[in-house]
Amino acid sequence: MINLALFGAGRIGSIHGENVARHPLARLVALHDPFKDNAVRLCENVGCIQMTPDQIFASEDIDAVLICSATDTHADLIEQAVAAGKHVFCEKPIDLSLQRVRQCLERVSQSDCITMVGFNRRFDPNFQILQRQIEAGDIGAVELVSIISKDSAPPPVEYIKVSGGLFRDMTIHDFDMARFLLAEEVVSVSAQASCLVDPAIGEAGDVDTAVITLTTASGKLVQISNSRRASFGYDQRVEVHGSEGMLVAQNVIENTVVAHSKSGVTSARPVHFFLERYETAYRAELDSFVRCLMGEQLKLPTMDDGLQALMLAEAAELSVQQGRNVSLSELD
Amino acid sequence: MINLALFGAGRIGSIHGENVARHPLARLVALHDPFKDNAVRLCENVGCIQMTPDQIFASEDIDAVLICSATDTHADLIEQAVAAGKHVFCEKPIDLSLQRVRQCLERVSQSDCITMVGFNRRFDPNFQILQRQIEAGDIGAVELVSIISKDSAPPPVEYIKVSGGLFRDMTIHDFDMARFLLAEEVVSVSAQASCLVDPAIGEAGDVDTAVITLTTASGKLVQISNSRRASFGYDQRVEVHGSEGMLVAQNVIENTVVAHSKSGVTSARPVHFFLERYETAYRAELDSFVRCLMGEQLKLPTMDDGLQALMLAEAAELSVQQGRNVSLSELD
Amino acid sequence: MINLALFGAGRIGSIHGENVARHPLARLVALHDPFKDNAVRLCENVGCIQMTPDQIFASEDIDAVLICSATDTHADLIEQAVAAGKHVFCEKPIDLSLQRVRQCLERVSQSDCITMVGFNRRFDPNFQILQRQIEAGDIGAVELVSIISKDSAPPPVEYIKVSGGLFRDMTIHDFDMARFLLAEEVVSVSAQASCLVDPAIGEAGDVDTAVITLTTASGKLVQISNSRRASFGYDQRVEVHGSEGMLVAQNVIENTVVAHSKSGVTSARPVHFFLERYETAYRAELDSFVRCLMGEQLKLPTMDDGLQALMLAEAAELSVQQGRNVSLSELD
Amino acid sequence: MINLALFGAGRIGSIHGENVARHPLARLVALHDPFKDNAVRLCENVGCIQMTPDQIFASEDIDAVLICSATDTHADLIEQAVAAGKHVFCEKPIDLSLQRVRQCLERVSQSDCITMVGFNRRFDPNFQILQRQIEAGDIGAVELVSIISKDSAPPPVEYIKVSGGLFRDMTIHDFDMARFLLAEEVVSVSAQASCLVDPAIGEAGDVDTAVITLTTASGKLVQISNSRRASFGYDQRVEVHGSEGMLVAQNVIENTVVAHSKSGVTSARPVHFFLERYETAYRAELDSFVRCLMGEQLKLPTMDDGLQALMLAEAAELSVQQGRNVSLSELD
Repeated sequence: MINLALFGAGRIGSIHGENVARHPLARLVALHDPFKDNAVRLCENVGCIQMTPDQIFASEDIDAVLICSATDTHADLIEQAVAAGKHVFCEKPIDLSLQRVRQCLERVSQSDCITMVGFNRRFDPNFQILQRQIEAGDIGAVELVSIISKDSAPPPVEYIKVSGGLFRDMTIHDFDMARFLLAEEVVSVSAQASCLVDPAIGEAGDVDTAVITLTTASGKLVQISNSRRASFGYDQRVEVHGSEGMLVAQNVIENTVVAHSKSGVTSARPVHFFLERYETAYRAELDSFVRCLMGEQLKLPTMDDGLQALMLAEAAELSVQQGRNVSLSELD
Repeated sequence: MINLALFGAGRIGSIHGENVARHPLARLVALHDPFKDNAVRLCENVGCIQMTPDQIFASEDIDAVLICSATDTHADLIEQAVAAGKHVFCEKPIDLSLQRVRQCLERVSQSDCITMVGFNRRFDPNFQILQRQIEAGDIGAVELVSIISKDSAPPPVEYIKVSGGLFRDMTIHDFDMARFLLAEEVVSVSAQASCLVDPAIGEAGDVDTAVITLTTASGKLVQISNSRRASFGYDQRVEVHGSEGMLVAQNVIENTVVAHSKSGVTSARPVHFFLERYETAYRAELDSFVRCLMGEQLKLPTMDDGLQALMLAEAAELSVQQGRNVSLSELD
Repeated sequence: MINLALFGAGRIGSIHGENVARHPLARLVALHDPFKDNAVRLCENVGCIQMTPDQIFASEDIDAVLICSATDTHADLIEQAVAAGKHVFCEKPIDLSLQRVRQCLERVSQSDCITMVGFNRRFDPNFQILQRQIEAGDIGAVELVSIISKDSAPPPVEYIKVSGGLFRDMTIHDFDMARFLLAEEVVSVSAQASCLVDPAIGEAGDVDTAVITLTTASGKLVQISNSRRASFGYDQRVEVHGSEGMLVAQNVIENTVVAHSKSGVTSARPVHFFLERYETAYRAELDSFVRCLMGEQLKLPTMDDGLQALMLAEAAELSVQQGRNVSLSELD
Repeated sequence: MINLALFGAGRIGSIHGENVARHPLARLVALHDPFKDNAVRLCENVGCIQMTPDQIFASEDIDAVLICSATDTHADLIEQAVAAGKHVFCEKPIDLSLQRVRQCLERVSQSDCITMVGFNRRFDPNFQILQRQIEAGDIGAVELVSIISKDSAPPPVEYIKVSGGLFRDMTIHDFDMARFLLAEEVVSVSAQASCLVDPAIGEAGDVDTAVITLTTASGKLVQISNSRRASFGYDQRVEVHGSEGMLVAQNVIENTVVAHSKSGVTSARPVHFFLERYETAYRAELDSFVRCLMGEQLKLPTMDDGLQALMLAEAAELSVQQGRNVSLSELD
């Protein structure tokens, strides 16, 4: 049995907290959230107690921590956790500053703790099958990857302001997906972006619609397209074109009922948002973390994966600003 | 909190037992199974104790029973349960004998207990949406219903021998589905059946492939097609043609990945069998039972629904034997 | 070059006439239609002259005739044609009377003329592929066939009155499709039918909605479902379940555009009616006839295929009247 | 009746020549091709005579010319044609040199002749429906366009060498499709390209795999992805994401048969190549030209559309060379 403590009892913290509560091999011992209401509610839901961060790090009972607190607390908590010998699961991003992430990874590398960044989409069963079929050579050499990733609706502008921008907040998942599917690092990034969905997002200094192209050393090409709003539901698809075939992971739809009428043949919409779409992925993600802590050898998204995705976001931002391809080597 | 006891710790009993264990408003207090191994294993899994039937019926703690034992014990247990004032969930069929079922329903009708037959497919989210859309008039008047229901593989011949035959064992779900979707009773049944899958099934006196046509008083027509074996997975579809449109509930498939190759464009197979396909339905079914016990007004499949489906099975068998349409009124 | 004459310049005659006009190896020399307007219009469209039946049969220039006139003229024209040594393509049905068809086939069998019945659906490219895959053993032994065949809208009641009834007029195509796909003759027919679409059809003594089950000697089962009205377009599908797989020929849809909106994901409707759906089939059908006349060995639907389909229609009608399975041997 | 003469009797010339031969309102009077074999064969097929270019331009019988000859003859022939008062249909591209195209358009603008560039995909029925639905506002404001365009197999390297490169030869259709679907001009182009399919293409100085991003003044974004080889068939799709919905034109597939087996559910491949996929489009394109010559007011792809698409190709090439966004205004 693995004993876990949780930082952050908001939306994403609740998902992980409840998944721990249901996991046969894990137990949520304690949680911390400065917003007392969140903390109390989640404690009741999952049957655990509140602790201060110091109590958590000092507790001999606790094997690992789940960091789901505000982004600007992530790096500090990671460092404290590994210093206290606790294994770490941390929601993305590690930090919005590349420099701070590098510093944090330096500390992590000096410990023996198991650490993992929460790139949940790697655990989506459909994307996993896609990745395994690529790896098995089913489509020959990968040549073109297309990642479509659109939210059903934009977050509040208040969130946008502290999010680090579209590339660090939203595209970061797609950057990681690209790296998950390619067997090769990206060397160059080109991005174009607009504010088309909501002018308030533009006024907050961010964009809401973007197209990003990644290139690898051998010339494989990746297209990402993002929008903060898809009126028809959460649009999350991946298409991989190889020398001997093409694989597409389609949207998950709400149900299997198809209606035939004068206006056409209508299937259900994609499921509404990430909670529904990635419910299974969140459970599988936590399960992988727990099983690694119990000694299994599984491939987890590492802290370095978190760093690499952030570098791609940084390069994309630079590309938009300067209207040119940005080489990853420029960020070293 | 509802306290439940379970009869039968086999495959279907385990499903319900585990669903109770996970239900926030229900608790599995005890179970009984004459096969000690099953009983012990499930008790461990769900954290309950063994009791004899007498102890269960005598216990003041127990609000209701789930009857998942061998078919020939169902009617007796139902009668004992309602005599003891316990609410009853009973797996289909109530009994293989129409006479015995009628006798049992007579007893049930004298009690105030809530009783329910386990027609799980009524709780499948896709079929529920289909039924609601019909009810809402989305396709006008229902005219033609087609129910395709094929198992991925036949059960052991030993099971076939005690199953009551294809119509009572397998088609019974489709008979109930027809009644669920039509707003009108069936008046006549015509059936044709063959043994095409496995000669051993024929030697056991049963058929493995069948086509059944149901007619209602107003002339609506229902086609059912059954096979004990679908090489490509569990094939469970419903198609309803109305005066103003058509609704189709398609198969649930294993994943959303589509492969494009020289040989075509390939999607995943239907999920393998009923455990996967109706997992959600089993949970929703139990949840509805529990919520009814807590006072909610929900439409549950009744004991009479169990009787009606069995009568359709009986009529289908007679139709095959005599090569003619059988009127339901002949069975009164 | 094959020289053809055409009887009947109505809707179906025009299709064939225009297809001859476009065929590189055939020429429409003359046509006859007692309705002068039709005759004149089609002559202009395709550039041919009018002739009387006697002139057509006497002409040494004419190799073959296409019989697309009123049903009650078919058998006479076939007999006159083969007596005159003309090859014959005849639209279905040969006649509404089984006895008359048998008499006609007796005459045909005494000639060396090539004769063919217009079961156009055998020439639909999708159904052809389906049939070839079955024949190639792709799905093992055929066990269950489902044929869905619904018109987009009922014909005028005046047409219904002279049509011979749903089974002889509409289902006849499905009976032939069943025979085309099975490698075995049907031995027994069961049918259920209703008047649900338009009471005027019932008043005219016909039905508009039907379900028919065919059984072969080895126990293969075929389901046909018919309606005179599918609000969403021409519904023409075939599904064949075999021991090792299932093949489905889906509807042909109007275009490939898929719209995603709040109300779902909408594809185009099936094409509207048989002229659009079977346009290619009509061309291929004529082409096969012409190529046979030029000496190629192709499998054409024979006059006997026309007889067999009519016998199935007769059996279906008897089954509805008597509420029982009808054996084909009863019709001998 | 419109009388036409044809330059070029190769693959594309034959398509147009045969479409004229079948058109009820047009006649192919003459053709010219320096390759005598091609000329003779097509003359026989369509029943016309050979003429020299001078004879064609001098003939009072000829209303218009179809220019399907080698690319380097296009601009000269266009100029001669309009000088002789002949209307012009010209295959893309007008010329590989931007300067030459501009010069040619200058001449064309001084005549009253109807001129048209052969962007056949604008006449594909599926893309037409897509465009009309966008125009009708079905998806609100267009925000993201994705054009996938992959050939089934690369042309011979000899062809590649004179083709003007991937962007001018292949992507030019996609550039025009983008302009067809956007109601706004492109202002900036970014392109990334690789040689992944065949090293011989790279040795010939070209690329075979590319990703291009277009930006309009208001910030709409267009993604194009190209490959010279799609192992599974001709891959031609368009996806348009708008503020209120998304439209997708899917591939046209070979047939409607779907096979269910242990390995999944397999539909047919996309049709093999452009001759099959755009057969209808080529006919509709010619028909529009003819109907314009007869006085109808239809929107044809103009010579300026040809220029604009070529400018986008030029900008894409520059973008690849310099690793930056290229503004269209740089090409003025």
